Amino acid sequence: MPTDPARHSHPTLRSKFAVVLALSAAALGARALPTSAPESVAVQLRDAALAGHSLAYEWVSELTTRFGPRPAGSASEHQAAEWAAARLKSLGFENAHIEGFPITAWARGSESGAIIAPRAQPLVVAALGESPPTPAAGLDGDVVIFASLAELKAAAPGSLAGKVAMVDERTVRTQDGAGYSAAVEGRTEGAHEAAQRGAIAFLLRSVGTDNHRIVHTGTAHYVDGRVPVPAFALSAPDADQIERIARLGQTVRVHLFSSASYLPNAHSQNVIAEVRGRERPQEVVLLGAHLDSWDQGTGAIDDGTGTAIVVAAAKLIRDAPHRPRRTVRVVLFGSEEVSQPVPPESVFGGHAYASNHQAELVDHVLVGESDLGTDRVYSFALPKGASVEFARSALRVLNPIGILAADGPPAEAGADVGPCIDAGVPAFQLSQDATHYFDIHHTPDDTLDKVDRSQLDQNVAAWAALVWLVADSDVDFRAAAASAAHP
Amino acid sequence: MPTDPARHSHPTLRSKFAVVLALSAAALGARALPTSAPESVAVQLRDAALAGHSLAYEWVSELTTRFGPRPAGSASEHQAAEWAAARLKSLGFENAHIEGFPITAWARGSESGAIIAPRAQPLVVAALGESPPTPAAGLDGDVVIFASLAELKAAAPGSLAGKVAMVDERTVRTQDGAGYSAAVEGRTEGAHEAAQRGAIAFLLRSVGTDNHRIVHTGTAHYVDGRVPVPAFALSAPDADQIERIARLGQTVRVHLFSSASYLPNAHSQNVIAEVRGRERPQEVVLLGAHLDSWDQGTGAIDDGTGTAIVVAAAKLIRDAPHRPRRTVRVVLFGSEEVSQPVPPESVFGGHAYASNHQAELVDHVLVGESDLGTDRVYSFALPKGASVEFARSALRVLNPIGILAADGPPAEAGADVGPCIDAGVPAFQLSQDATHYFDIHHTPDDTLDKVDRSQLDQNVAAWAALVWLVADSDVDFRAAAASAAHP
Repeated sequence: MPTDPARHSHPTLRSKFAVVLALSAAALGARALPTSAPESVAVQLRDAALAGHSLAYEWVSELTTRFGPRPAGSASEHQAAEWAAARLKSLGFENAHIEGFPITAWARGSESGAIIAPRAQPLVVAALGESPPTPAAGLDGDVVIFASLAELKAAAPGSLAGKVAMVDERTVRTQDGAGYSAAVEGRTEGAHEAAQRGAIAFLLRSVGTDNHRIVHTGTAHYVDGRVPVPAFALSAPDADQIERIARLGQTVRVHLFSSASYLPNAHSQNVIAEVRGRERPQEVVLLGAHLDSWDQGTGAIDDGTGTAIVVAAAKLIRDAPHRPRRTVRVVLFGSEEVSQPVPPESVFGGHAYASNHQAELVDHVLVGESDLGTDRVYSFALPKGASVEFARSALRVLNPIGILAADGPPAEAGADVGPCIDAGVPAFQLSQDATHYFDIHHTPDDTLDKVDRSQLDQNVAAWAALVWLVADSDVDFRAAAASAAHP
Repeated sequence: MPTDPARHSHPTLRSKFAVVLALSAAALGARALPTSAPESVAVQLRDAALAGHSLAYEWVSELTTRFGPRPAGSASEHQAAEWAAARLKSLGFENAHIEGFPITAWARGSESGAIIAPRAQPLVVAALGESPPTPAAGLDGDVVIFASLAELKAAAPGSLAGKVAMVDERTVRTQDGAGYSAAVEGRTEGAHEAAQRGAIAFLLRSVGTDNHRIVHTGTAHYVDGRVPVPAFALSAPDADQIERIARLGQTVRVHLFSSASYLPNAHSQNVIAEVRGRERPQEVVLLGAHLDSWDQGTGAIDDGTGTAIVVAAAKLIRDAPHRPRRTVRVVLFGSEEVSQPVPPESVFGGHAYASNHQAELVDHVLVGESDLGTDRVYSFALPKGASVEFARSALRVLNPIGILAADGPPAEAGADVGPCIDAGVPAFQLSQDATHYFDIHHTPDDTLDKVDRSQLDQNVAAWAALVWLVADSDVDFRAAAASAAHP
């Protein structure tokens, strides 16, 4: 008797198939299951980005090529902001405009370093951001090496009188940037700790994971409104060289020069543009990145690609078959790099935004920032207010592009959106692989050639898809929900 | 009946075993075959080096740490030579001494470059060796980009009046350095070709295979005793940036400054030391490398490791159970980097040696030079005078450490030994893998951390073993032998 295999398949086989399907759904994001309308659009946007149909690479290429380095308060930062606002308008964004704010700008000037004893040798150095200049003739001092900031902090008061204190801590390479977080206090606190013990200058092994003759700069932190002594970073091979000479039993004496200066009446600006929501336009999903960069490179991965990712994701959302329910707002912040931990200089652009838009913050349903380069996103984190259903939907859309759900809400969502978060706005995070980021971060090597287009596209895919889900949903992420929100 | 398996094994199996043995012998260097006494010593030296029992790393570490960059004619080159001569003496070498000679030394001074239109952007540049300075205020000019030196040569006379000519040729990454050889004429000839067409300065995409913001320097060639216009190399990302701005349809105008100068009464020196032969000490096997370096790095791989390899190999020979028949002479040449193709500046140290030792050259049985970094040796080449027997012995000793026999005599054995070769002395070559060498060559990145110790040891093993075989043999490498010399 002929049988219909579909109807009469073996019951055990059928249940096995169901189990396999369920397992696949869990493991692979359940593409086979029916999708809701927002999920279906999110998948379309995701796949368009993956196929290279986004403007991300073109954006970062043009930004870095036309404007080069964009230090906070510089003419190139202003010009880049004007270009970005005009470009966002021409791309069809609404409400594209610039919001200016005053800053204290720091300018590197010229600088040099050399070993002068036991034998003259040049050094590759760069002043840390906010470092005061040296005297015009430079300064000379014997180097005292500390293996870590903790070791410097253990030195007795007055023990470094007339010396140049050097913190020689290595940065550990990690996927999540934990190695950087561990080492960076040497950069932010070292000059202060050295000065407190009488040092006339501070030297730092670059906080970075490469071994090139390039220097990782970054801000040193103020104490009483200033960095107390001239502070320089060294390339890793230069730090090695000083270490080895010292190990030969010889005192290393260095000459350091910097003509760094401050421009107290400078200004910077945030660039803002929107895709207005179709149902609740007053509700804002904020996508942030920063337009300023350090001065040695062209700010391609810090944070040219961040601006490219959020603009390209928002543009895909702009061009979707219909508008999302909520407004998607892109904010390209100014002057992120020179921020200090305490006001008035703390996260200039972020504070200016939160202050200008204070009344709207109650309607900011979610904020996120892209500021860790261009390598792939490997996990996403949602605030406690995310429903279990929403988190599962996000996982179904993001898991097929290699993104897992994080174990808990975002630890840190980005410097610029910090003031919004402090004001009570919930944040999401798309965590990028930082394994190679700190080879390049804050160095002259931060140039367009370091951008991997396929990884950039994966970032745009993740942002477009997740932001669509957020913007087209009814979930109130501001609600304090159960811990079950994280699948 | 009990059987002896060795005597009664199956005849087919036995012949198969013989075939396998013969194939292995051909493929693997026939370690199973009996070795002659020199071969046995060569194997001992080789294996001692592979086990790390050589002073190569210690040598290059101390040389680069104590003296840093060693530009031709500099105090650090002189001091390094004095240190090397003293160290060779203390290591038990005979006849350790320094032979000085006059040179025209070039000093970089300070330098800078920037794009000044369409928007100001800094450039990472370095003057090419022997480049004249710019005017004290620098010079400005519009860039005209040529994809290759050939394209520049095709430009009409006068067509570059007032312009800055830029050769933008990429260097292809190859094992044998052929990519470098193809691109380097842009560096040596570009300034002259540009000046002939009216250009006021010359810019070159670095001849190198990396993508860091570091510049590959190197000499430009004289025409009538001078480089005609200021000549600079750019880092690869800077060349990319100029290219991209030009592709936006904009004219790139640059500012260039250099205070380079010449020190006409400078001197340099060769350092010489020997392991005297036990039977025919007048017969010399010469091992060369150069002690000077470019000024941006510390000359670790160019050519600190070369000096380390030949000194460490000679020291292993010095400490062998008995002396070789012939004398092994180490020559650490001065002022290799600034050589010109025509006298009087051509290969200063090499010419000084060949001139000082002209009468002995008839007894120089073989010369070789290590000057391609620290990556592994993959082939060896012998002169036509090598007997088939000698070549097979060398292959047996070298093949187990991954070294093949080259298809013919050495193409080019090294700049410093060139004048000896021109005088009729035969040469050997141990070819190193240059796949990564031109990432670092002539850049600030040429520092100790780039030295791979296990690959350095393999070089020492190859040099010690092959030089032992040469020095302990009766083969007259100067004889013109049959092409069968190459196995």
